[in-house]
Parts: sequence; structure tokens; C-alpha cells
Amino acid sequence: MPVGTQATVKGLSQRDLWDDLHARIILGNTYHLFLRPGHELIGRLGGLHRFMSWPGAILTDSGGYQVFSLSGLRKIADEGVTFQSHLDGDTHKFTPASTVDVQLAFGSDIMMVLDECPAYPVSHEYARVSMHRTVRWAEEAFGHYRQRIQNAPTRNALFPIVQGSMFPELRRECAERLFELDADGYAIGGLSVGEPRPLSLEMVEASEPFLPRERPRYAMGVGMPHELAEYVARGVDMMDCVLPSRNARNGWLFTSEGRVVIKHARYREDAAPLDPGCGCYTCRNYSRAYLRHLFQAGEILFASLATRHNLQRYLDIMGEIRQSILGGRFPLYLNSIRNSAAQDRGAAV
Amino acid sequence: MPVGTQATVKGLSQRDLWDDLHARIILGNTYHLFLRPGHELIGRLGGLHRFMSWPGAILTDSGGYQVFSLSGLRKIADEGVTFQSHLDGDTHKFTPASTVDVQLAFGSDIMMVLDECPAYPVSHEYARVSMHRTVRWAEEAFGHYRQRIQNAPTRNALFPIVQGSMFPELRRECAERLFELDADGYAIGGLSVGEPRPLSLEMVEASEPFLPRERPRYAMGVGMPHELAEYVARGVDMMDCVLPSRNARNGWLFTSEGRVVIKHARYREDAAPLDPGCGCYTCRNYSRAYLRHLFQAGEILFASLATRHNLQRYLDIMGEIRQSILGGRFPLYLNSIRNSAAQDRGAAV
Repeated sequence: MPVGTQATVKGLSQRDLWDDLHARIILGNTYHLFLRPGHELIGRLGGLHRFMSWPGAILTDSGGYQVFSLSGLRKIADEGVTFQSHLDGDTHKFTPASTVDVQLAFGSDIMMVLDECPAYPVSHEYARVSMHRTVRWAEEAFGHYRQRIQNAPTRNALFPIVQGSMFPELRRECAERLFELDADGYAIGGLSVGEPRPLSLEMVEASEPFLPRERPRYAMGVGMPHELAEYVARGVDMMDCVLPSRNARNGWLFTSEGRVVIKHARYREDAAPLDPGCGCYTCRNYSRAYLRHLFQAGEILFASLATRHNLQRYLDIMGEIRQSILGGRFPLYLNSIRNSAAQDRGAAV
Repeated sequence: MPVGTQATVKGLSQRDLWDDLHARIILGNTYHLFLRPGHELIGRLGGLHRFMSWPGAILTDSGGYQVFSLSGLRKIADEGVTFQSHLDGDTHKFTPASTVDVQLAFGSDIMMVLDECPAYPVSHEYARVSMHRTVRWAEEAFGHYRQRIQNAPTRNALFPIVQGSMFPELRRECAERLFELDADGYAIGGLSVGEPRPLSLEMVEASEPFLPRERPRYAMGVGMPHELAEYVARGVDMMDCVLPSRNARNGWLFTSEGRVVIKHARYREDAAPLDPGCGCYTCRNYSRAYLRHLFQAGEILFASLATRHNLQRYLDIMGEIRQSILGGRFPLYLNSIRNSAAQDRGAAV
């Protein structure tokens, strides 16, 4: 899922996303949209889809992650979290119920429960207390959500989030507790917070067997291109990550032949497309030399063309994975990815 | 002509320009492209059209204007101008012949001769000496150009530039001297350098009668939306201006109902399109409230959507002018523009 933090995937129009990239679901950030322009305004204007003119599905996070990573002073209590806006220092409070209300105002197709996402590393004791709080918050969120939709059946789904830091038994306990909520889908959170990458995969492995097989599982905030198949191999159906779009803006491009750091002098007169194996608008129309020029000149068009390509690359990989599963070839596919990742490590095009 | 300074109209893809806006000619800046990525590189990569993947026509200026407005220390001599790059302080020299060579390497469809564009105001004496230098440079540029294309007939055109600051008799003398070059078209330069707007129009009036009627005339660096018809009324066929694109990025939008300064709180919950009378992608898909949100949040997509609209507005106006001329209604059209401009002065939507 491309990440559209502030009701826009940075640098792309909704047409680029829908018609060209065939993205069908994008992510919005509750923390950002709550602060600006505000969920009430978005609600009055017909919801987030209409506000941003997006014909597809929208998943919004609960805002918890940004409260912990972006906001100023914050205070966690049993009933929720109080925090200062990173924009103007104003104090706000998120509770399990209030973040459901905010996301209902957005009209999100998939909403997330408020959770605490601990930093890495934390003590077992902190992780345990925090995980129990996350479970309690999830129960409260579901209680509130089911009350709110009782008389106004909606098509929104609400996903709880498995936490437990890097302790497999806490992950397992959390998953077992959340299982009882009978949710439409389950997220695995607390990944990509600074831990070594093998540990992220281990935590997915520790959670997955205790989540219902027939419901979608969503690994939050992962991963690098060669890791996507690893998550799928561990039962993950959905992922979101800022890497393709953020790295694009920084000139770090993912291609079917490895990474391209476009500022390198080797691309100065390179008339080849960024990725000869890619069919995106950028690769069909522009050379590496032109992209490098735009990057060096600080031109907006670079961000747009680079993001387009990187998202296409991620969506292509997910398409390959899907085809290999449908064709019964996923183990072979996974092996080929592992082999080429081992070869590519440290190598650029 | 939309301005594509560094081989890109800021924020727009070539598809946006060609397919959506139906722009058929854009402008590139010789000074910027000479410094980065360099005309030799662009030449080796097949010329500017191919480099930037632009299927339409390209006009490049001579670089003179930027030498005078952007570069550091500069020294004008009879044979050309020596200047320091605003990027790295390196010293370069432009001569009438070298700027033709640079533009031939670009493969520009319309090239401009090196000229001196004096600041405003300057003394009559300075303006006279400078104008004579500009005429001499134009003669040298044409001599060199005709020699270069002798054995390699090209489809490039070279336009000389009428200067003379704000002195009508110098404008007339300059136009008469340049007439003798029998050029494919003529530019009127030295406008929009800080002079009162009526003076710009006066200088066009002073030059126009002495330029050949059957050749295109190009007023450089103008103007505001309500001024376009005024220039056309004075015999101008071509204009370029950074206003639609630069103002767009600053949140200043031109609509058929007047200007919209998008940051104003009045647009906070405005669900209407930016310009209900406009058919551009932005107006077809997004509300003023969404555009304001993108602007306030500093999102790249704002620059792209706003530029799209402002350029559409300018191209729509030029289309209206063309239709009114073809239909024999131009005097009526001009009158209506003058009336609504008088009403709008100082008023916003």
C-alpha cells in the first residue's frame, strides 16, 4: 500500500496512482490528518475519499505510531495518550474510542485500533505492561466501534494490532488475546523500529500461527523489496512502507537489476531508462541522465517521476508474488529472490 | 509558452503538458541549461527534445537575461559578456556566436540572439550604447548562424531582440536596424524589468510598426492574464511568462472569476472546484479545500495541481483570443477584458 500521509502520496496525482500504477488501496495517517486539516473538516466535506478524490480503498493507522515518533511531550495513561502537536505544540488526547471516531469521520475502509508501539530495545517488563495496555485498548476500541455501528451498519473494518516488542512469547500472548475480538483482519505492529531485520521476521513468525488463517494479516511499516516475499512466506497479506516513496525523493531507486543511486556520476550521460524491465511512465519516457539532471537541479518533477517508478517496482513485486502463488510456484520464486538478494547485497547497477 | 527553465516545467510531466494542457511549445533557459547539465551533454544525448522527452517545439532564450539578473560579477565587453555562475562561481563567457552554438547543440526550434537587457531605469545614454551593442551582437549572431547552417540546413529559427529601454525612439531605431536581418521572427525584450505596466505596452507600440507584419512577434516575459489581449492588440503573437507557474507554486491562482489566494481561511471548507469554468484536471477532480490543505501542508502535489490550472487558464485565454480573432470579434473581446479587469482590480473571488 502506497503511503499517503497527509491525504496525498507525495508527488503523485490520484490519476497517477489509480490509472497508471493501478494502486487500489492507499494508506493515510490519522495523526497527521487529525492535526491538519482535522477529521471534522474532512467529515463535513464527505470523508477522506471524496476530500482527496480517491476512488480506491483507504486504510488509516490509529495515530499511535506518530504520537510516539513525532510528537513532543507525551504522557501515556491507562485511558489513552496525551501529546503535543509537532505543528504548533497544542495538547491533544487520543483514546481507543476517540481514534475510532476520528477514523469513522474519515470514512476509512480499514481502521486501526490505538496501540502503543514501543521503541527498540525495551525491557521485557516494559514490553509486557505495554502489550497488555495495547490489548485493553483494542478491547475498548472494539466495544466502542460495535456500539457506534450498531444502528448505522458501515463497510469499515477495524484491525487490532499485535505488539510485544521483540519477545516471541509476548507476541504469542497478544495474538491469542486479540484473536478473541473476531476482527476482520489483524495487523502486526512494532516492526521497523530500529531492530535488526531478521528479528522483524521472527516476530511475524511468533505472531502468525495464532491469528485466524482466513483473515488478512497486515505487517505494518515493512519492508525492502527483497523482503516482501519473506513476509508473504510468513503468512502476511498486506504491507505498507514509506521506503519506495521516501527513498525515491532522496534519489534512491529500486530496479529489477538492483538499486540506482541517481546522483552518481556514472548516470550523467546514461541514455538508458532507469529500469529497462519496467513499464512505468518514468521508464517508458525518460533516461537516467535526465532523471539525474532533475535530481541535481532540485526539480519537483524528479520526486514525481522517481516515486512513480519505485511504487511501480513494489507493486510489480507484489504482482509477481501473487502470480507465483496462483501458479503454485511461490517456493521457487522465494528461492530465486533469496539468491539474487544474496548476490546483490552491496552491489549497485 | 509555459516556461521550462531547467528542461522541465516545474511540477509537470511532459504528458501533463502535451496530452492535458495541449501545450505545443515551451521555453527553456539557455543560461541554466548551459551551466547544468551543459549543452555538450544535451547535444550528445540527442538534443533537448529527446533529453527531456518533449514532442513539441522548444524556444530557448539566449541566456542574456539571466546573466544580468542571476549571475555574480559580470563584465560586458564589445565581444560578449563574462560572468560567474550562480551555482559554483565558475567564470564563463557568452558571445553572440557562442550562444548560437549552444542553442544549436540544444536543437532549439526557435533560438534567440544574445542581447543586453538593461535594468530599469537607465539613462538615455546608457540605453543608446547598450542598444547599439545589442544590434551589433545580433548582426554577429546572424553572421555566425548563417555560416553554420550553410552546409547543414536546419529547421531552427533565430530571432533578434528589440531593446532600447523605455525610450521610444531607441526602440524604433533598434527595430529598423534588426528589420534588415530578415529574420524568421522578432522579439521585443527588456520588458518586465520593473517598469510600470503601461510603459511595457508603450514600448511594444513603439517597436511594432517597424517589424515585418508577416513574421511572428514575441513579447518576452509578459504578462498578467488581463494583459495578454493588450499585447495581442499591439501585434504580438507569442509570449512567455513565469507568472502562471511561479505564482501557482506560491498559492496564487488565476481563475475565470478572478484571483484565488488559496491560503485564505475562506477556502478552508470550500468544496467547490478552484474555477468552476475550467476543464483542467485540477478543477475536474479537486476542491478548493483540498488544494488549500495541500498548500498549508507544503505538499508537492499542490505545486503540480496549481501549475496545471494556471497554465490551463493562460492557454484558455490565448485560445479565446484566437477564436475571437478568427470570428472577427477581437475588438469586442478586448473591450470585455478591459471592463472586467477594471471591475476586478483589487477584488478577489
